[in-house]
Amino acid sequence: MLRIMRKIEHIGIAVKDLEVSNLVFEKLFGASAYKHEEVESEGVSTSFFKSGPNKIELLAATNPESPIAKFLEKKGEGIHHIAFDVEDITAEIARLKEEGFIVLNDVPKKGADNKLVAFLHPKSTNGVLIELCQEIK
Amino acid sequence: MLRIMRKIEHIGIAVKDLEVSNLVFEKLFGASAYKHEEVESEGVSTSFFKSGPNKIELLAATNPESPIAKFLEKKGEGIHHIAFDVEDITAEIARLKEEGFIVLNDVPKKGADNKLVAFLHPKSTNGVLIELCQEIK
Repeated sequence: MLRIMRKIEHIGIAVKDLEVSNLVFEKLFGASAYKHEEVESEGVSTSFFKSGPNKIELLAATNPESPIAKFLEKKGEGIHHIAFDVEDITAEIARLKEEGFIVLNDVPKKGADNKLVAFLHPKSTNGVLIELCQEIK
Repeated sequence: MLRIMRKIEHIGIAVKDLEVSNLVFEKLFGASAYKHEEVESEGVSTSFFKSGPNKIELLAATNPESPIAKFLEKKGEGIHHIAFDVEDITAEIARLKEEGFIVLNDVPKKGADNKLVAFLHPKSTNGVLIELCQEIK
């Protein structure tokens, strides 16, 4: 059997100013971000911090149409999503649809950090935006 | 040197109805909650799910004065806090205060799941309520 939701791959946190927030999380973790990446298709600029087997991804908007810009406008800074590491994202999408979850991506898309990703609508998961992600080999 | 923020110990999710949400997360993880616990001092009833090295803690209010009842009223269901596993919570409280974070508990208190816990005010951490937790030996 597939091991599903093998760990929390990362937590995504929406921030207004990436440079200012990088300093906050540097102090929190006692270490700098180990990676910065821009995902143009999503309109986001990101920083990654490590916490043992897990990551924290800071997300800032790079344009006003970015989903992060809209999130900040509506809710302010804070946790945007949880991402779980999955072994086979296509199988997980099928399984979760079958279980009644609202999967926002029938076909996984390319995300940050060399991952295939798909999202579940928070309406079907107690208000939590959940990302499935599978490392691209 | 102390290894700080060694992993995401758990993510706390505020839910209205614990039994209904248990079913949702059972489907998500393909496994039942492995533990239920009531923390009377906090006015919460909890369920724990495993995701590899990490946990998901569902939190429901047991009385209207519970911090979870207030959170639900203000923000609705969703992620309530992230908890990081620390080796020495007293040292971490001192370090983080020194770094300028607003630590809500000068002295760690007893939390769920056999842990000593302390919280950082979201105002100093980009809107994220952060819990430090150390296993009680």
